[in-house]
Amino acid sequence: MGRSPLYGRDLICTRDWSLEELDLALDLASEMKRDRFSESHLNILRGRTFMMFFYNPSVRTRQSFEAAATELGAHAQFLEPRAMRLKTSQSAGETVEDAAKVMSRYACGIGIRILEDRIGAYGEGDALLREYAGHAAVPILNMADDRFHPFQGLADVMGMRGRWGTKDFRGKKLLQVWSHGALARSWCSVQESLLINSRLGMDVTLAYPKGYDLDPEVIGEAKANCQANGARFEIVHDAVGGYDGADVVYARNWMSPAAYDGGFDKEKEIQKALRHPDWICDTNKMRLTDRALFLHPMPVDRGHEVTDEVASGPQSLIYEVAENRLHVQKAVMALTMGE
Amino acid sequence: MGRSPLYGRDLICTRDWSLEELDLALDLASEMKRDRFSESHLNILRGRTFMMFFYNPSVRTRQSFEAAATELGAHAQFLEPRAMRLKTSQSAGETVEDAAKVMSRYACGIGIRILEDRIGAYGEGDALLREYAGHAAVPILNMADDRFHPFQGLADVMGMRGRWGTKDFRGKKLLQVWSHGALARSWCSVQESLLINSRLGMDVTLAYPKGYDLDPEVIGEAKANCQANGARFEIVHDAVGGYDGADVVYARNWMSPAAYDGGFDKEKEIQKALRHPDWICDTNKMRLTDRALFLHPMPVDRGHEVTDEVASGPQSLIYEVAENRLHVQKAVMALTMGE
Amino acid sequence: MGRSPLYGRDLICTRDWSLEELDLALDLASEMKRDRFSESHLNILRGRTFMMFFYNPSVRTRQSFEAAATELGAHAQFLEPRAMRLKTSQSAGETVEDAAKVMSRYACGIGIRILEDRIGAYGEGDALLREYAGHAAVPILNMADDRFHPFQGLADVMGMRGRWGTKDFRGKKLLQVWSHGALARSWCSVQESLLINSRLGMDVTLAYPKGYDLDPEVIGEAKANCQANGARFEIVHDAVGGYDGADVVYARNWMSPAAYDGGFDKEKEIQKALRHPDWICDTNKMRLTDRALFLHPMPVDRGHEVTDEVASGPQSLIYEVAENRLHVQKAVMALTMGE
Repeated sequence: MGRSPLYGRDLICTRDWSLEELDLALDLASEMKRDRFSESHLNILRGRTFMMFFYNPSVRTRQSFEAAATELGAHAQFLEPRAMRLKTSQSAGETVEDAAKVMSRYACGIGIRILEDRIGAYGEGDALLREYAGHAAVPILNMADDRFHPFQGLADVMGMRGRWGTKDFRGKKLLQVWSHGALARSWCSVQESLLINSRLGMDVTLAYPKGYDLDPEVIGEAKANCQANGARFEIVHDAVGGYDGADVVYARNWMSPAAYDGGFDKEKEIQKALRHPDWICDTNKMRLTDRALFLHPMPVDRGHEVTDEVASGPQSLIYEVAENRLHVQKAVMALTMGE
Repeated sequence: MGRSPLYGRDLICTRDWSLEELDLALDLASEMKRDRFSESHLNILRGRTFMMFFYNPSVRTRQSFEAAATELGAHAQFLEPRAMRLKTSQSAGETVEDAAKVMSRYACGIGIRILEDRIGAYGEGDALLREYAGHAAVPILNMADDRFHPFQGLADVMGMRGRWGTKDFRGKKLLQVWSHGALARSWCSVQESLLINSRLGMDVTLAYPKGYDLDPEVIGEAKANCQANGARFEIVHDAVGGYDGADVVYARNWMSPAAYDGGFDKEKEIQKALRHPDWICDTNKMRLTDRALFLHPMPVDRGHEVTDEVASGPQSLIYEVAENRLHVQKAVMALTMGE
Repeated sequence: MGRSPLYGRDLICTRDWSLEELDLALDLASEMKRDRFSESHLNILRGRTFMMFFYNPSVRTRQSFEAAATELGAHAQFLEPRAMRLKTSQSAGETVEDAAKVMSRYACGIGIRILEDRIGAYGEGDALLREYAGHAAVPILNMADDRFHPFQGLADVMGMRGRWGTKDFRGKKLLQVWSHGALARSWCSVQESLLINSRLGMDVTLAYPKGYDLDPEVIGEAKANCQANGARFEIVHDAVGGYDGADVVYARNWMSPAAYDGGFDKEKEIQKALRHPDWICDTNKMRLTDRALFLHPMPVDRGHEVTDEVASGPQSLIYEVAENRLHVQKAVMALTMGE
């Protein structure tokens, strides 16, 4: 294949790409899933290097990006910035500009993961990715930052498309619901889901206990997307009501915004107290839906976020979506980096 | 090559495979050693991902498995579970089932290493591998657990076959002898050697100072294997006597079962005291043998476990067996994972 | 390509190779830079394993060596010796001989990085590489030790050749100048530069504040090289004078020899005090030169070692030289390891 129209592009949030561009990636991901290890895909990035920067550790993201590179003929370098002497206000070191410019000489692309507990204030992680993107001559891919998680969003959409057999999500209802859990989860997967699925025409119900507000800018944009599509957007603080008529339930713990003030260790203690035991996704609630699919970005905190019966039930897409991470990552790497 | 009869199989202990199956692997390993880097082998797992889970660090095992994957056209991901949030009785996290099912979507196989100091009680490491095997859709390979080390056992057999020029080990005598040393070694290599070599018809003498008993279930099975083959099995607590007439001497330190009660740090202190200086494999003892080969899984604690003269002498197979690790691992990966 | 005349050779310091041999590597590096990812280069080390031992962490060296292996079809294993149980005077473990001999069975070559803070006395790092080289059956490549950094030296020369369009450096003047900085840098890049550029016929001025002497043996050899070439060699303790008429300015911080006595943490404190603010490479000083090129091995401590204006100016070769690291490493790996 030659260079695609997406050659050289970054992917930091799905909203940075048009729906047509996202569709191109999703179509190629489906083709790659059907025809895995085909000769034509195995050479797309042959001999190339993809750099993966993990400011935060990760299992699934690391495994799936590293495998994606391998399946395209490339090699993904696993890099942890404890070994990087980057310049900060506190210490001497290398500027992001120097790091990005040098890596652009070695690599065909750079993936970065940085979450809330490695930054000073909300948004700084996403800003760091955009700073890299400003200096790098190669694509910057967001492997999850404090705001967005575009490959999770794409994998979710690919999962629903696969199960529903249609790209037309209009008239379908997404319940994006907070779950209690023993870990304080990032906002990125949830916010990405709200942004991309609202653009695709879904009705969106966002449900969470008071005190668990997300980024108002993201919520505002999701609402505007729904309005532009003539779809419904609502926020409820009710553990059950939102399930009514849902076509897909995305149940997932997330931390409260207070964590940014009080610290993430304190937030983890709060979450461990499991104060909202009614906020679990279970069969009783799922019966209120329109045979909804169950989505979760994994790892699943079973027994807290969701019961085993739902997570392992026939409507659960968790393993399918986890696999899709690989395929959407391969597709985007091929489209943005393939010569 | 197409799929072998071993496609999809786990290898957790050599006793899980028939002698015919082990022979298939050993034959392919020899072919791969003779014809390393041949075009036909370089593509067997092209573009595939092999996951390596190191609950315990390792040098040789990591190097040889990672090289094995490379030489088959695959890529081995080096994963350390400090980065994995697995569910335990103490903490929330991902279940082994979820981890195994997702990894099966990304990888053609999973290797796991977990030794005695990362578990609560003897046998839990091996049990964890079998739990993974119960859930994974791809082969689980044992890269050394608290009980067994199948690839070491296969590499040992390959080494003896190579030197003796025969697959028929009947009538040959193995001395499996404890050595003093400054490190408390695992039981896995020694137990695997007892199990596989007793099946191959060797006479087995197991020698160790009192207090260094191994797993009675394994010893019972080795004894039964010898009986079934009409071979001799004996246990002696004598640093010298067992050498008499041996064809192969496998001298290696191992920890006492007391380590499981008192803790591994305490055991290391005990071993460092080097209380059994007569339990060293040296030239004087080797003279009592029938020009025995010397085996050791490395790393060798020279001057304690064995003298330099023996370890670097003409009958020593240590480097040859270390190289064989690569070849048997390649062969088993090819047989269990090659399409 | 078949085996080159350099097949099997180590590269620990450029002075271990003849100028003709270095020229062979530089020519191949240039060819590889012009024709990156060509089919002929992608297969040179196909399926081979290159071992990288990082006693000290590194970013650029790791990235560029790992990418070099990838671009030759090989795989570079990233190894940190905290996982290695090497024998020392204090502790039991594996001998360098055993480690080197086993790795020679798995790998086509071994790279080692070990700097001043992981050794007991100056020279021990370089001595360790030579001990490995004495036992290994495959090439040992120096990825920076306490004395030398041959690939940095080659990348520097490649950068100057590229910009000047000539291999003839006679009559050109190198200013090798100490810079103040908040980090205590190793001597290796600077000493390698003095050794190789003095062999190439350049006039050399070495400038540093009193108390920052380098290895007298290296200085003596650089001086002798200049004399043999009829070139000038001088040492000055003046932050400005040496710039006069320079064709290339290599400005870089380095630690004082006192660090070997007082410890590296103390040295870092001393450097952080930034007691020599006049020792910065800036535009005013660069105006005294003959439109000199600016060299630095990166990472650059901007604002201390050099101003942004110089480091990012048109005469700066920093990114070009960083890229050249990849190409010279590829070339040397191909020449010393390619079958």
